[in-house]
Amino acid sequence: PKTITWSPMMAEKGGYRHFMLKEIYEQPRAVADTIAGRLKDEEGDVHLESLGLDDKELQSLKKVFIIACGTSWHAALVGKFYIEKLARIPVEVDIASEFRYRDPIVDEDTLTLLISQSGETADTLAGLREAKGKGGRTVCICNVVDSSIARESDGVIYTHAGPEIGVASTKAFTTQLIGLYLFALRLGRVRGQLSAEECRRRVAELVSLPRKLETALELDVPIENIAKAFAHARDFLYLGRGNQYPIALEGALKLKEISYIHAEGYPAGEMKHGPIALIDENLPVVVLVPHNETYEKVISNMEEVRARGGRVIAVATRAETGLRDKCDALIELPETSDELMPILTSVPLQLLAYHVAVIKGTDVDQPRNLAKSVTVE
Amino acid sequence: PKTITWSPMMAEKGGYRHFMLKEIYEQPRAVADTIAGRLKDEEGDVHLESLGLDDKELQSLKKVFIIACGTSWHAALVGKFYIEKLARIPVEVDIASEFRYRDPIVDEDTLTLLISQSGETADTLAGLREAKGKGGRTVCICNVVDSSIARESDGVIYTHAGPEIGVASTKAFTTQLIGLYLFALRLGRVRGQLSAEECRRRVAELVSLPRKLETALELDVPIENIAKAFAHARDFLYLGRGNQYPIALEGALKLKEISYIHAEGYPAGEMKHGPIALIDENLPVVVLVPHNETYEKVISNMEEVRARGGRVIAVATRAETGLRDKCDALIELPETSDELMPILTSVPLQLLAYHVAVIKGTDVDQPRNLAKSVTVE
Repeated sequence: PKTITWSPMMAEKGGYRHFMLKEIYEQPRAVADTIAGRLKDEEGDVHLESLGLDDKELQSLKKVFIIACGTSWHAALVGKFYIEKLARIPVEVDIASEFRYRDPIVDEDTLTLLISQSGETADTLAGLREAKGKGGRTVCICNVVDSSIARESDGVIYTHAGPEIGVASTKAFTTQLIGLYLFALRLGRVRGQLSAEECRRRVAELVSLPRKLETALELDVPIENIAKAFAHARDFLYLGRGNQYPIALEGALKLKEISYIHAEGYPAGEMKHGPIALIDENLPVVVLVPHNETYEKVISNMEEVRARGGRVIAVATRAETGLRDKCDALIELPETSDELMPILTSVPLQLLAYHVAVIKGTDVDQPRNLAKSVTVE
Repeated sequence: PKTITWSPMMAEKGGYRHFMLKEIYEQPRAVADTIAGRLKDEEGDVHLESLGLDDKELQSLKKVFIIACGTSWHAALVGKFYIEKLARIPVEVDIASEFRYRDPIVDEDTLTLLISQSGETADTLAGLREAKGKGGRTVCICNVVDSSIARESDGVIYTHAGPEIGVASTKAFTTQLIGLYLFALRLGRVRGQLSAEECRRRVAELVSLPRKLETALELDVPIENIAKAFAHARDFLYLGRGNQYPIALEGALKLKEISYIHAEGYPAGEMKHGPIALIDENLPVVVLVPHNETYEKVISNMEEVRARGGRVIAVATRAETGLRDKCDALIELPETSDELMPILTSVPLQLLAYHVAVIKGTDVDQPRNLAKSVTVE
């Protein structure tokens, strides 16, 4: 495996008020580093240097589990979309503390992907051992070289995020999404589901992503102003559909973790099956509504919230005419493919949680009750 | 299919203050009716009269999807445990509004189970059509004879709950769990995963369940007292592991729907990956801790909550010595098998939500913003 060297300098705040803010700003670089050296433009393919599975093994897979905890579990939920769409293999995502006690149905044609920033998460490590014990293949996505999970897996896809000090994960999350996307592209290619040209087109979009992340970071000041308007709220809802639903969960978790506001993520289509009863003028609702095939559906969910007095913060792609009148605050992101959009929409939600926490005066980098790496069960 | 006749009389409140309370109390009868005529004691098997799939078709299944919305989705999550454990077929649970836009991987060896009380839920109906359109087999679990979903599915397992008027589903939910359990037993038998004796033992436990539900209902007054102590809370958490995690979600949804308190369910093992930051003396935490193989783990999660000042309402099985000192309120249920325990633990959570709502003075049977049957997308 490629060795990543972290200097003590890299763990300094470098002029930022908090590690978390520094790490949010490092994402264009972290994403670029995680892509670097892994694209084979001529072949229209992706190279993952220590995957531990050869082409024949990748071709024989019949099922993929993705197992993780917390923020990494949200990355896993996006990964399901990537792998099922690009490689057409059924993917089951499970929370590590649930998977290991479920007596999961795993055999030698099953790949279990483990995701953990630290590579030391106790439940994820136990999930890895459970899958291996049943004869399945294992690959992990992690950020710390030679961590326990990396050592015990058959293969590893390292994220090159650099050290993450803030307890609330940011750049580790977005680079996990990159790792999952690269893996799905590889799998799609080797299984003949994706042509060289289809892969090349996606890779080109991927290469343009760090620049778009820079553009998203320019929203810092407007988002700080939104945070000022909503920081007094006791509760938040976050809504998304499809591959934006995990980002709604992640946005809510960020706010919970560092501001102690009770925020909850929901698939937008589930609102009317219960949570809509919570809606009143005191409940801000963050709606992820980039332009994609469920755009009109999400707009309709958003209008239901507004019709019941809820206040809407919409995260959209630019040039959505008419959206400004349908929400109380609008965050406009650059366009990218639907597949990569979850990586872009993550950024404003990180900034929103960060600024709300700063306004509330909580300890952003060391929130109460939480540890960076959960090495107990 | 068996025809169920509902008389106008059955839709009266019959002395209860609300339909919801009446329906909670009807559960022993509804469960007994859903079991009645479906047990074949001599063969140690289960008879489902309009399943629409013969033994050979049941044997050839390689994958089961369970698709639903809201409360029915929580039943689906328990159903995954039933089918995977008793029949060893991989089960994937999906929210209907997500499934239909996911381009799911479905073929002729895939069974899609649809769950809907009304049989008219728009997203679930669309999910059914998506699965059928891809050539898969379909069976629904629903409570209304000749509803759209029942008519369009290859087969149907009717719950015999009788009309459910309260918007917050109670007896429909517990009878859906019975329908799923009966189906899993049938599937386990026909696929040779379950011996006649193993089935017979489970059936005997099932037959004793209505009596145990009666016993659980005797907790009404103590639960009302707990409701009085906690009704002022702004937020609640509900924790469970394994097949109790969906019940934690369902308990939280009940409270949300009728009391407008922001309640959220979490797998207990995920607490330390974020939500534990919310814990303080103002946050009641309902912990589902029946005696099973993860009992010690859940106790340890409960202690983490208490150590951070959180107030714990524990739902446990009787005769757990020492538990009383570890929580602020204790609800003690009769013993049953681990498989059937989710049906028992549902009851006190329904009563808790009901009494909190009554104390708060909300409209229990017609909560704001909600419709009984969601026939729009």
